[in-house]
Amino acid sequence: MSGARYIEELTPVSIALEELKGRVRPVGEWFEVPVWDAVGLVVARDVRAPVDWPPYARSAYDGYAVRSEDTPGRLRVVGEELIGGAPRLRIGPGEAAYVTTGSYIPEGADTVVPEEKVKRLDDNHILVEEHYPPGSYLDSAGSIVRKGMTLLKSGTVLTWEDVAGLLEVAVTEVPVYRSVRVAIVSTGNELIYPSMPALTAKEILEGKVVATTGDVIEGFMRRYTPWVEVIGQTLLPDDREAVAWHIERVLPLVDVVLVTGGTGPSRIDLFYQLQDRLGGELVFRGLYVIGGKPTSAYVVEGKPVVGLSGYPISALHAMIRLVYPLLQYMGNVRRPSPPLPLVEAELEGEITPKRPRPIKVRLEYRNDKIIAIPLDKRYQKSSANVGFLMADGLALTGDRPLKKGDKVTVFLLRQPRGYKLPWLTP
Amino acid sequence: MSGARYIEELTPVSIALEELKGRVRPVGEWFEVPVWDAVGLVVARDVRAPVDWPPYARSAYDGYAVRSEDTPGRLRVVGEELIGGAPRLRIGPGEAAYVTTGSYIPEGADTVVPEEKVKRLDDNHILVEEHYPPGSYLDSAGSIVRKGMTLLKSGTVLTWEDVAGLLEVAVTEVPVYRSVRVAIVSTGNELIYPSMPALTAKEILEGKVVATTGDVIEGFMRRYTPWVEVIGQTLLPDDREAVAWHIERVLPLVDVVLVTGGTGPSRIDLFYQLQDRLGGELVFRGLYVIGGKPTSAYVVEGKPVVGLSGYPISALHAMIRLVYPLLQYMGNVRRPSPPLPLVEAELEGEITPKRPRPIKVRLEYRNDKIIAIPLDKRYQKSSANVGFLMADGLALTGDRPLKKGDKVTVFLLRQPRGYKLPWLTP
Repeated sequence: MSGARYIEELTPVSIALEELKGRVRPVGEWFEVPVWDAVGLVVARDVRAPVDWPPYARSAYDGYAVRSEDTPGRLRVVGEELIGGAPRLRIGPGEAAYVTTGSYIPEGADTVVPEEKVKRLDDNHILVEEHYPPGSYLDSAGSIVRKGMTLLKSGTVLTWEDVAGLLEVAVTEVPVYRSVRVAIVSTGNELIYPSMPALTAKEILEGKVVATTGDVIEGFMRRYTPWVEVIGQTLLPDDREAVAWHIERVLPLVDVVLVTGGTGPSRIDLFYQLQDRLGGELVFRGLYVIGGKPTSAYVVEGKPVVGLSGYPISALHAMIRLVYPLLQYMGNVRRPSPPLPLVEAELEGEITPKRPRPIKVRLEYRNDKIIAIPLDKRYQKSSANVGFLMADGLALTGDRPLKKGDKVTVFLLRQPRGYKLPWLTP
Repeated sequence: MSGARYIEELTPVSIALEELKGRVRPVGEWFEVPVWDAVGLVVARDVRAPVDWPPYARSAYDGYAVRSEDTPGRLRVVGEELIGGAPRLRIGPGEAAYVTTGSYIPEGADTVVPEEKVKRLDDNHILVEEHYPPGSYLDSAGSIVRKGMTLLKSGTVLTWEDVAGLLEVAVTEVPVYRSVRVAIVSTGNELIYPSMPALTAKEILEGKVVATTGDVIEGFMRRYTPWVEVIGQTLLPDDREAVAWHIERVLPLVDVVLVTGGTGPSRIDLFYQLQDRLGGELVFRGLYVIGGKPTSAYVVEGKPVVGLSGYPISALHAMIRLVYPLLQYMGNVRRPSPPLPLVEAELEGEITPKRPRPIKVRLEYRNDKIIAIPLDKRYQKSSANVGFLMADGLALTGDRPLKKGDKVTVFLLRQPRGYKLPWLTP
């Protein structure tokens, strides 16, 4: 056992990230796809409006399209324009047409009178009692969007709301980058897949550990990095050959490999032994954090192979701090959605983290502030997953002591306790 | 057309919610399911620890398990305990056993010496140079959890992190409520499903509207209410018989029906005509908001049938303010996850909303504050979905004027611009 096998110099997250970014390339391939298939993907080229919008003047209300100069007055209803078709009618002096919100205005009309402001005289006639200037209650042609206007910048992660926006103005295809592909490899002789609950409980009591770290980091990516496609999770024993063999085979299919477990400094840990087999360049070994300290990375054939702790909390910590911004970079993301659930909270109690660290906290909402109360020490251990059950979030500290009242950034696992939706609070 | 067909009295959201809650029952059925299948579901009965944890003293480090009284001293290594099994060894005076983080301590040992603090003398002997008091670098039996301790309260929405916590302490089954089942019915003669992009673009320019409101509200539920199962979306014309027929058939299968479109006060809107066919009780008609004002609800056979606006922004607004807390209530949720992405922002500019309203805002991060800048008026219209493309969030106002510098609650659609992950900012 040589001393070189221990972690000797820890790399700060910001430097580790820069070192990685300098050695890997963001995804370059992009395709035109139907916008309704593009939610969660990243816009690859600026999207411009293909037409003026609306293409014709459009009613903003249910009511009657009329000529402004005929108001006030008694008008004859000559028909109706329903939403869903180009304008069909043409109205002349003294005429009106029924329109609904969103339907185009008949030729000849220049204003809309809302239905409830109109007196219906008989089946064919209405009385408008006031004057309506031209352009009332309607959107004129081109008033919302001009042809050629930039609608979405490249780097935007598309949302369902964006799809509604694009389809409104007849943008039906959008250039998007292909997903960033990630493989997860969980290693550990002690790890098992769950089977029957009773049998699994027995195995746990005998010292086996159910593999959950891969699910925690996959859950993180599914929720917060929709531009990432998790190709799969593989569970392997602490066997250098098996792990190297697997990574070699999966590497051509993916952009990033995340390995959990086997990153510690101990005799049996294998992440560092992989280089003989995989080649590539060791970028850093050991992160300047507590909870994820053994995090390390190679770059093999331009692709990051990141070794994460086998503990869920420590792997999640490295995901939030390091892998998340790396996945943004690799995915060309400049306008991410959904946002990470980070909030500023006020610390209750003191913490003296020696390095950046995730502190499991209970979160209480008091006087419009979120108060972060660190859980008891025994639940702060990386090995105490049970602390997740009591925690509402992870306070992400720096390396300086924090005292009561200090601000701290918290990654929310749930809604803070006592939070009332403000519009329901009388 | 009688006056009663128009909305005459608008109901504030908090009252509409209370009226609904008074007439519907939360889901009652619950089941024991494997915890790994329960993510997103709601814990139905408090979960207690089945055993002390850890069941035996467990190493918190890679190193050597020894007898405290033998330190400092020269020790003989008699074997190793690997993680993944019950303790197998027993050590006597002058003996040590190799242990890894998480492995149980051999009988006889009462402390752990970290690997890097030990001098390896030869294959079978180590030198410990300092004294290690009993209990160093280990978690003693029962030190993390005591049998019978409450681990999770009913009403908690289970996360992947919770699964890791439960499986750690051999909880492999968990009582959860069945999902709240929701059907979405989108109505509108103008609505089309998308087909080929070029054909769909042509149809849009001719006045057709691609049905996106259902996707926006389904997307909202998939992201923020994982305890809800969206049974399906159905697109129907503005045909009272068709819609009533469909709701009658789907009602026995679901807990909530969300109808989009057909809720306006106009001649062709049909939501109000449904009662003749469906029976039930009209709970409220018209919400005291702008953007979702026509929102209305029946209760039919104890199940809410909520009519939402056909506009994505207005339907989403009613989802956030009204349907989200209703779905929490129906799902027995008291500790929701994920949290709604609500933040406090500082308003730039003025708004004079007459009723609670969603204002599409650009969000900029400046000096540790989120600044909310309302988009131009033309993008605020309910009909201007294109405003979603420029917006980063929806400011959820009350009914009073807001001026520059006022605080406003914002529902985030994306990360505010200029936000830097704080640990990457030097």
